[in-house]
Amino acid sequence: MMNFVNVKDVKNFNGQEVTFRGWIYNLRTSGKIWFLLLRDGTGLIQGVVSKNDTTEEIFNKKDILTQETSVTVTGLIHEDRRSPGGFELIVKDIIIHQIAVDYPIALKDHGVEFLMENRHLWIRSRKQWAVLRIRHTVYYAITEYLNENNFFRFDSPILTPNACEGTTTLFQVPYFDLGYAYLSQSGQLYLETGIMSLGRVYDFGPVFRAEKSKTRKHLTEFWMMDAEAAFVEHAENMQIQEELIRFVIRKVLDKNLSELEILERDVEKLRKADAPFGKMTHHDAVDLLRSKGSEINYQDDLGAQDEFLLTEHSDVPIFIEKWPKEIKAFYMKRDPENPNLVLGDDLIAPEGFGEIIGGSQREDDHDILLQRMQAENMPIQDYQWFLDMRKYGSVPHSGFGVGLERLVTWMSGVQHIRETIPFPRTIYRIQP
Amino acid sequence: MMNFVNVKDVKNFNGQEVTFRGWIYNLRTSGKIWFLLLRDGTGLIQGVVSKNDTTEEIFNKKDILTQETSVTVTGLIHEDRRSPGGFELIVKDIIIHQIAVDYPIALKDHGVEFLMENRHLWIRSRKQWAVLRIRHTVYYAITEYLNENNFFRFDSPILTPNACEGTTTLFQVPYFDLGYAYLSQSGQLYLETGIMSLGRVYDFGPVFRAEKSKTRKHLTEFWMMDAEAAFVEHAENMQIQEELIRFVIRKVLDKNLSELEILERDVEKLRKADAPFGKMTHHDAVDLLRSKGSEINYQDDLGAQDEFLLTEHSDVPIFIEKWPKEIKAFYMKRDPENPNLVLGDDLIAPEGFGEIIGGSQREDDHDILLQRMQAENMPIQDYQWFLDMRKYGSVPHSGFGVGLERLVTWMSGVQHIRETIPFPRTIYRIQP
Repeated sequence: MMNFVNVKDVKNFNGQEVTFRGWIYNLRTSGKIWFLLLRDGTGLIQGVVSKNDTTEEIFNKKDILTQETSVTVTGLIHEDRRSPGGFELIVKDIIIHQIAVDYPIALKDHGVEFLMENRHLWIRSRKQWAVLRIRHTVYYAITEYLNENNFFRFDSPILTPNACEGTTTLFQVPYFDLGYAYLSQSGQLYLETGIMSLGRVYDFGPVFRAEKSKTRKHLTEFWMMDAEAAFVEHAENMQIQEELIRFVIRKVLDKNLSELEILERDVEKLRKADAPFGKMTHHDAVDLLRSKGSEINYQDDLGAQDEFLLTEHSDVPIFIEKWPKEIKAFYMKRDPENPNLVLGDDLIAPEGFGEIIGGSQREDDHDILLQRMQAENMPIQDYQWFLDMRKYGSVPHSGFGVGLERLVTWMSGVQHIRETIPFPRTIYRIQP
Repeated sequence: MMNFVNVKDVKNFNGQEVTFRGWIYNLRTSGKIWFLLLRDGTGLIQGVVSKNDTTEEIFNKKDILTQETSVTVTGLIHEDRRSPGGFELIVKDIIIHQIAVDYPIALKDHGVEFLMENRHLWIRSRKQWAVLRIRHTVYYAITEYLNENNFFRFDSPILTPNACEGTTTLFQVPYFDLGYAYLSQSGQLYLETGIMSLGRVYDFGPVFRAEKSKTRKHLTEFWMMDAEAAFVEHAENMQIQEELIRFVIRKVLDKNLSELEILERDVEKLRKADAPFGKMTHHDAVDLLRSKGSEINYQDDLGAQDEFLLTEHSDVPIFIEKWPKEIKAFYMKRDPENPNLVLGDDLIAPEGFGEIIGGSQREDDHDILLQRMQAENMPIQDYQWFLDMRKYGSVPHSGFGVGLERLVTWMSGVQHIRETIPFPRTIYRIQP
């Protein structure tokens, strides 16, 4: 009987004979001894193959093993501080499943186009593996925080008859005899109906933007968590956002230190970000930017450069709140202290990673909301169900959306959002 | 200062003055005393308003309160076994947020079309609320089991260039200058690439079928969990499926007893299903069906009536394994003991709830897989990335898919799948 174990659990098996199943990551020979790096999905371990510990037949497998060949390897676990991970395997037996011939991604640099074309293989590389594991942690940290704080999952539909934010960036789908459906850009409006049943709700699924942007921050398909809560107002809304993000930081630091090391992420910067967040109004942000030489105006949205300037000397993310109503969505509630402003907030990550959350208190007065929708020439008939929320038991409520890939980009410190999702979709790419 | 609490936590506040925020679910007057049923998203509590305990002004609010009016209600928690939930609220104060006028869904029966048209309001009804809370439990029970068993979340793309199961049921989306994208029907093929990076992976997102079916088991948009694991073969694959489903049953019984009661679900049937599952080959299943008078043949797929006949006397779900290769997908591995069969399994729920899982060991030999794809006239060029998995370190592996809504239908005992998702999409419905 083989004692199958995972590399991640190796410390529990010191001195024991165990069997790993995985793939050859690298090989190195040194005369009477050779080394293999084995990866099994949970981690990497070095195996030592010497003529003393195994048969001639096994020893000679060095001549046929190649990178990515699939193997079952049995040996003795041996603590060794010099080894990566602190343990090595004294190999006794190697069973080969399938020999990989001419694996296209060698352990050297390739061009991005080549790697994207081979994304199905690129994900096996250490850095991609590390980012995908951090993505897993971030996804579940978000849901864990929400589940523990009385939010219920409420999956909003992807096929929708109307658009939340404009129509020029919508993917359009012929839908039987009903004309067209549109791929959702945000579940927010649906979530607002959910709070009237469940109190606090969220969704966390793919959203779609048919944007022709090709920056390193844009994907056409990405994952968004939208949360919405009844009886929560602007200040508490920001408080929930801050607690959520700090919870995520702590989970990543707790579970992914070795992944962060692989990515050469400055962990100290993440540690420092788990502290009370900054907060300033949009007006004060513009003041600050102008004092730094920017020509931004008081009615302008913030660009990437503005976000960088605002956070460059901050260890923590910064909320920008109370925005001019003209540059924010129709559903945001006016600031009772200044009707030209809305109770919206953007949360800007430090280190130039940009916006990670957008949120607001929502307009809960039927007539004010209707007027705004009319002013924006929205098709009222199609939104009657949404207006119903203000007719039948309207309550003060707030919500926010977190872009999963943007948050993972910040946590992992990678430079391009395309590395934070298994199969990125951009304006030029839908393969593989 | 108001002491805001949730109805679900009421037992912790016996004898204390607390404040709830929510909606009026029902009103009942009885001379010098009247009763309100308040729902706050976490549960229902009865409030008692008597002239002795409050002011005349508050007492008279019975004349303006209506169903679904939003309120903040303060009072004294009082244990009372006759009350629903075991506690009642002796009301001292009521603040009205917004009075609902002519709420369309009264506490009586409505036609299904009307309810579907008003799905955004229907979800407030007790039974719909209960089903959605069970859905939340089921979703997270599935992920909890997987996360604890070394599976990593690996979100497969929704916009895909090729189809996993035929092309006639695909939603087609114009995609910039690249022609068309198709909405994913299953992430399985992508997950097979993920196991080579992470060992064990799953996705859990929306999938789409442009089917013209209009049975009570069909939606055009539904949620699917696909899992895939390296070095797992057919028998272990079924073992994982059984453990997963039994874990889900226990979680629902642990967290949703009151919801199951609202739904009048026979809880004993769920309890009994948490026992070793049945197992028979497709051939034996056909034998059994024929002995019961069915005219099914040995090359036929099972219909809903067959699934019912097979499980009608079973307390537990039943695996049907080893299917004729002709009626299963190209990627399933042949049974080494009989090349006319594949190592696939369907898991059939008892009580006529039908298939809840489909799984199989996957073909891991490059040349056999290629031949099968050619035999089915698949566009090989488009699947080169998939074939790559068999060229670069192929390993034995298996996987399965769980339909979330079908599983919730069984758990909650509702008769129609449309009640198990917040906003169901069918061939005739994309609103609201």
